[in-house]
Amino acid sequence: MAEQDKVILHGMWASPYAKRVELALNFKGIPYEYVEEDLRNKSDLLLKYNPVHKKVPVLVHNGKAIAESMVILEYIDETWKDGPKLLPSDSYKRAQARFWCHFIQDQLMESTFLVVKTDGEAQQKAIDHVYEKLKVLEDGMKTYLGEGNAIISGVENNFGILDIVFCALYGAYKAHEEVIGLKFIVPEKFPVLFSWLMAIAEVEAVKIATPPHEKTVGILQLFRLSALKSSSATE
Amino acid sequence: MAEQDKVILHGMWASPYAKRVELALNFKGIPYEYVEEDLRNKSDLLLKYNPVHKKVPVLVHNGKAIAESMVILEYIDETWKDGPKLLPSDSYKRAQARFWCHFIQDQLMESTFLVVKTDGEAQQKAIDHVYEKLKVLEDGMKTYLGEGNAIISGVENNFGILDIVFCALYGAYKAHEEVIGLKFIVPEKFPVLFSWLMAIAEVEAVKIATPPHEKTVGILQLFRLSALKSSSATE
Repeated sequence: MAEQDKVILHGMWASPYAKRVELALNFKGIPYEYVEEDLRNKSDLLLKYNPVHKKVPVLVHNGKAIAESMVILEYIDETWKDGPKLLPSDSYKRAQARFWCHFIQDQLMESTFLVVKTDGEAQQKAIDHVYEKLKVLEDGMKTYLGEGNAIISGVENNFGILDIVFCALYGAYKAHEEVIGLKFIVPEKFPVLFSWLMAIAEVEAVKIATPPHEKTVGILQLFRLSALKSSSATE
Repeated sequence: MAEQDKVILHGMWASPYAKRVELALNFKGIPYEYVEEDLRNKSDLLLKYNPVHKKVPVLVHNGKAIAESMVILEYIDETWKDGPKLLPSDSYKRAQARFWCHFIQDQLMESTFLVVKTDGEAQQKAIDHVYEKLKVLEDGMKTYLGEGNAIISGVENNFGILDIVFCALYGAYKAHEEVIGLKFIVPEKFPVLFSWLMAIAEVEAVKIATPPHEKTVGILQLFRLSALKSSSATE
């Protein structure tokens, strides 16, 4: 890395979108300064750097701002070419990795949040939807990752963009279980996804980005209670 | 291109998503076979190639299938490295191009379709939303593309992924005007976007992918009437 490289990440510690960037920077060994944003009172810098969406994450590299986590991950991989890659080198495998990242982004992110934010019938509906989509992902990953030891060695040798996007969403599985009393990645239903998640949890870049369990439980509870409260106020 | 390259595009002529891929292949001068899909009676091949979404476009390159238009565009650019590029070579400019592609995809595609599919109050609401987002795009493009002649020379010299995504959605502006009686890219409101669209329409790869006006009007009318009919049946 050139001497003059200055990298700043504007994030929020519990955001799965910001977590993607944090994981990518850790994994590639890129030194960076971290700015924690208060999302109820966003900094002027965040609003200046991301006027369109006004959201974290924003990566600022030598004064130039890049927003949107998936765009940032591609930027990181293309800018820091030394060391481990986030995307496979083969263009067909890159396409498959991007396809499944899109799938998680479009089909699973919002509906997984919805499970945390609802209860009763609405929650059951959201759970059914998430399980249906996870089944599609399970079948896809059976082909993409293989099964059994192939998964573990795949994660060890080819950790990258898809592992990051999956684990930024489901890495907090213990907190999910404690707060909403259910597992998303049920081992009996989704054995491939479960082995995958367990293998990812052993990666050093992931370990150092994992906040203390109690802290994650606390914010998830807050997020859930505030969503339930505002939904009952509007019903 | 290697002698053995066999490229097949499964598309549907009026789909803006399939249009993106057609434009990219034309622009890069990649020979391909085209398979028109009947979306009410999808081919077994389409279902086999895109079992997850069961949608066009699918690109089949030497027997390997790639789905999702944005993933396909990146694949095309990475696989056929000779000739013109779809993405800028500078990684920061690539990030900007990708950012605005995401913006059009996430903020404008569905809401633009909604204008075509509704009338009365619901349509007005959709129009307001589209104009609000187009204003954001106008401001963004003022910085990204410049103004006046800079736009024209930019399109001539750097036609690529963002031009493709923009024009696949708004290229049929004459048909939009005839069928729903309004312009999306109003010259007075969005002068930069308007100049951009006009410059894009002069690009050879775009001209040859533009279907006859009457044919586009016909399918838009059908699409609109069938949406209005099914919405009145459920109200």
